[in-house]
Amino acid sequence: MTASPLFTDLYQLTMMQGYFAHGVHAQEAVFDLYFRRLPFHGGYAVWAGLEPALDLLEGLCFSGDDLAYLESLGLFTPDFLEALRGWRFTGRVTAFREGRAVFPHEPLLTVTAPLWEAQLVETALLNTLNFQTLVATKAARCVLAASVSPHGGQVVEFGARRAQGPDGALSATRAAFVGGAVGTSNVEAGRLYGIPVTGTHAHAWVESFPDELAAFRAYAELYPDATTLLLDTVDTLRSGLPNALTVARELRAAGHELKGVRLDSGDLAYLSRSVRAAFDAAGFGDVRIVASNDLSESVIASIIAEGGRVDVYGVGTQLVTAGGEGGGALGGVYKLAALNGVPKMKLTGEPAKSSLPGAKRVWRAADEDGHFALDVLTMGDEPRAGERVSDPTNPLRSIRLPDDLTWQDAREVVMEGGRRTGVPETLPEVQARAREELGRLPAGTLRPLNPHVYRVSLGGDVAALRDRVADSLRAHAG
Amino acid sequence: MTASPLFTDLYQLTMMQGYFAHGVHAQEAVFDLYFRRLPFHGGYAVWAGLEPALDLLEGLCFSGDDLAYLESLGLFTPDFLEALRGWRFTGRVTAFREGRAVFPHEPLLTVTAPLWEAQLVETALLNTLNFQTLVATKAARCVLAASVSPHGGQVVEFGARRAQGPDGALSATRAAFVGGAVGTSNVEAGRLYGIPVTGTHAHAWVESFPDELAAFRAYAELYPDATTLLLDTVDTLRSGLPNALTVARELRAAGHELKGVRLDSGDLAYLSRSVRAAFDAAGFGDVRIVASNDLSESVIASIIAEGGRVDVYGVGTQLVTAGGEGGGALGGVYKLAALNGVPKMKLTGEPAKSSLPGAKRVWRAADEDGHFALDVLTMGDEPRAGERVSDPTNPLRSIRLPDDLTWQDAREVVMEGGRRTGVPETLPEVQARAREELGRLPAGTLRPLNPHVYRVSLGGDVAALRDRVADSLRAHAG
Repeated sequence: MTASPLFTDLYQLTMMQGYFAHGVHAQEAVFDLYFRRLPFHGGYAVWAGLEPALDLLEGLCFSGDDLAYLESLGLFTPDFLEALRGWRFTGRVTAFREGRAVFPHEPLLTVTAPLWEAQLVETALLNTLNFQTLVATKAARCVLAASVSPHGGQVVEFGARRAQGPDGALSATRAAFVGGAVGTSNVEAGRLYGIPVTGTHAHAWVESFPDELAAFRAYAELYPDATTLLLDTVDTLRSGLPNALTVARELRAAGHELKGVRLDSGDLAYLSRSVRAAFDAAGFGDVRIVASNDLSESVIASIIAEGGRVDVYGVGTQLVTAGGEGGGALGGVYKLAALNGVPKMKLTGEPAKSSLPGAKRVWRAADEDGHFALDVLTMGDEPRAGERVSDPTNPLRSIRLPDDLTWQDAREVVMEGGRRTGVPETLPEVQARAREELGRLPAGTLRPLNPHVYRVSLGGDVAALRDRVADSLRAHAG
Repeated sequence: MTASPLFTDLYQLTMMQGYFAHGVHAQEAVFDLYFRRLPFHGGYAVWAGLEPALDLLEGLCFSGDDLAYLESLGLFTPDFLEALRGWRFTGRVTAFREGRAVFPHEPLLTVTAPLWEAQLVETALLNTLNFQTLVATKAARCVLAASVSPHGGQVVEFGARRAQGPDGALSATRAAFVGGAVGTSNVEAGRLYGIPVTGTHAHAWVESFPDELAAFRAYAELYPDATTLLLDTVDTLRSGLPNALTVARELRAAGHELKGVRLDSGDLAYLSRSVRAAFDAAGFGDVRIVASNDLSESVIASIIAEGGRVDVYGVGTQLVTAGGEGGGALGGVYKLAALNGVPKMKLTGEPAKSSLPGAKRVWRAADEDGHFALDVLTMGDEPRAGERVSDPTNPLRSIRLPDDLTWQDAREVVMEGGRRTGVPETLPEVQARAREELGRLPAGTLRPLNPHVYRVSLGGDVAALRDRVADSLRAHAG
């Protein structure tokens, strides 16, 4: 993670200078970070990246090198550059705790800070939170797909070689863990984040020995309690499987147990059934079957649907690049909601891209079973039973709030004066929260495609303010 | 770019220890890096990331912290960890020069090094080269789409906020430049790579002033020779355009010229025509129109097809995440081809995933016009006219080589003894090479979809060796 404030778009810096030149840089600005569409055509997103984003805000400052480079661009005045010396982020951050389930149009994170501070941090906040939320959501989808099997199934992250740059790999690993992956092959991510590291061996290992059995024996001798053998270098069922069975027997004779085998090509449903049956018949019911080879939540689901017996899904490319339909990027945005106490919004040529003015609160309702029912944005007060709330993109779609709901202020002040309000949360804490949150969603929301649409609604005060500000902007446009 | 050797998959380290324990770690290994499918269903790829990959190889060493973490995993012996102290990459790298057009199944980069060195670097090499090649190719597709307009058109990279982590953003920016982008909004990438940085302003700027005209005037006053005004905060044609015209006139009266305007929503073909016409009619033919909003090569093509008048395409998400059909990741692999002089291959359950044994050379043929005709892999010798060469995935598809071709040994030794053989190439040199290469491809190869398939063929010696090694492996499998 680069902590240089130059990891930003040029216009943030030219605008900062503009605010500074016009003496408005210290005015209190409120910016909301939110997205407009759920990734993967799914029903939820897992909010991730908050702790790294807070690290970033706490560490941000301009070094002498940073200032020298900015000076070299010929765009900045000496007094502005001088003002950047000693510049720090001093604002407040109100946000969903990391790992929570989140939805379109609700402010996930709100920055309240002097205008020029709030402006600068846009790019880095979006970069961190967009990507980690995307990958955590993808991981949750894979984990949920694997959990359908009557035999259970875990997800580990295997994607370093296909990730979008080294840091793309590291933050993807972190986010995959938030979303429920139990381990990673990436050693550096293991060190940085304390995530369990795991691995098997590659085809090259087998090819480096006179034959496959010799290669398997050599690996088992080195790692007698941690050997997972890759079966498909020559032929999975005719060569890999019998050789692995031989090694499993030899390990047992020496007082150890073969940990697992890995399948990396071919029909993974068929092969895993065959390999499971062979190991079970030979008395090795605890040997775990790891599968890899361009897995995704839909491939995992189809392996299970066809009776596949995979215990561990090693998901690589599709997880770390959050690939697939509706993936690749989360379109999070960061929009000015108020300045100096005055509500602000942009209209633009596309209604769906208009923003919601004013400093808002997000309330989450639970029903009597503790399941989440809907989220409502208000200008402050808890929503009232009987209040009419409306859809953010379609004012004609509205409902009255029922009276059997329990409301929770869904966000917390996580940073004040540029410093965290508490100790950073650990990754296992965040992972546990994500798991609990998904368990509280209406079941249809978890469906991988065509899910139940979880409702996010605008309280009457938010809708009224939006209409008033939009009318006033249109009047100005003549 | 992290230079820690722990940025690797765990199994590389457990295999290294295995090679070390069996005393084969110093045997000379040959690994080929290649991919099997072109991204985006296109006809070419732009090879990128080589210089950063060589930086990485030159810098790789285990720190005390690295070794302490490895020790903590409980998998490694003291003598192996001691052997890693002072470990360096000492191998040879033979590769296509960065920026060249490359194709499936040909070894793009070959590592010849002691087995345990060649094994360790797999993950980091693939991570760097897969991603940068993917993004450079995407950029080239966007640049080619923009070049179709009779009025010209350039591509700049605007994607930092949607990239896959901060480093994903930085290496994407570098690769986009290789592929032909002329600038970036990312200030840190500008500093790191010397790429021109560029920018406009955001909606928040406009909302921070009493009205749009005041905001435009304030920006123009600050940057009288570098102002690009964002037109769609209120209403592009009814508010943004007339206000920008007012500022253009005021700037001219003060001896300056408005540089450009940006469109960020709505129908970009229609709006750019309207805005162009208005500025031309008012005598501002040099004001440049910048367009953004989820652009891709196909959106660029459709804007041009509908007579749009965009001068600069600000491509963000789709470029830095290399999105779209057939994008997201390049499936480059790294396979053992020889060990201690003995050819090696893996068969696996899928014929397309088999590797090509032996240390090969790649030859590229040019026709009499200087256009590239096909690439041929041999075990060493230049291909001969009349020689029968075959398709790597379908031995039945073969041709005889014509006699009017000029052959070039397509790769160079770029590293020897773990050190570069020459000075690092500059990014503009690499960008210029990519442009020249694309100009030498058969025209149909550049078609964005359903392109002419550029032929990569196996010389008779390569095909014969593959068949011999495969037969011997199958015989072993019984």
